[in-house]
Amino acid sequence: MAAPDTIVDLSEKALRLLQEDADKIEKLIAIQMEHLTTRKCPLYEEVLDTQMYGFSRAVDFAVRAGLVEDGAGKLLISQLERNLAILYEALERRAE
Amino acid sequence: MAAPDTIVDLSEKALRLLQEDADKIEKLIAIQMEHLTTRKCPLYEEVLDTQMYGFSRAVDFAVRAGLVEDGAGKLLISQLERNLAILYEALERRAE
Repeated sequence: MAAPDTIVDLSEKALRLLQEDADKIEKLIAIQMEHLTTRKCPLYEEVLDTQMYGFSRAVDFAVRAGLVEDGAGKLLISQLERNLAILYEALERRAE
Repeated sequence: MAAPDTIVDLSEKALRLLQEDADKIEKLIAIQMEHLTTRKCPLYEEVLDTQMYGFSRAVDFAVRAGLVEDGAGKLLISQLERNLAILYEALERRAE
């Protein structure tokens, strides 16, 4: 494993990793939406739930380890949820 | 958030937190098994899959952050899987 120099470095790295994870989920969901013909697809919702759950477990761990502030962790999750909601609304409008 | 003194402290804390998570999953699954009448229950398998996925995401994050060695992370997961397999075998024998 790479050894960061200080706790501050490690905290910054943790936030960066989580942000990258959130970005990846957003891209994955965006690609899924592009290829969906029906909007209410159970498989899509299952993938989304699973991804959000996995992400929330990683964020929760980072907070408990003391690497990420509780508020920053909640913000990461709420921002991802908001971005996904915006994507979903755009898809809804396109489908009208 | 609590601020551990050193990277070594933080690594130890990370391993301890993950081990606690693994223990919790084992207990949850053991309790579920106690209350199951049928062994092949889709709901049980879904809970197990979800828990294992969430745990693997937290371990993966800890490894990527440089808090936990890759080998130690893999060991945590394989130990949990083995313990769950032992529980399951005990249930199978009891049901015979």
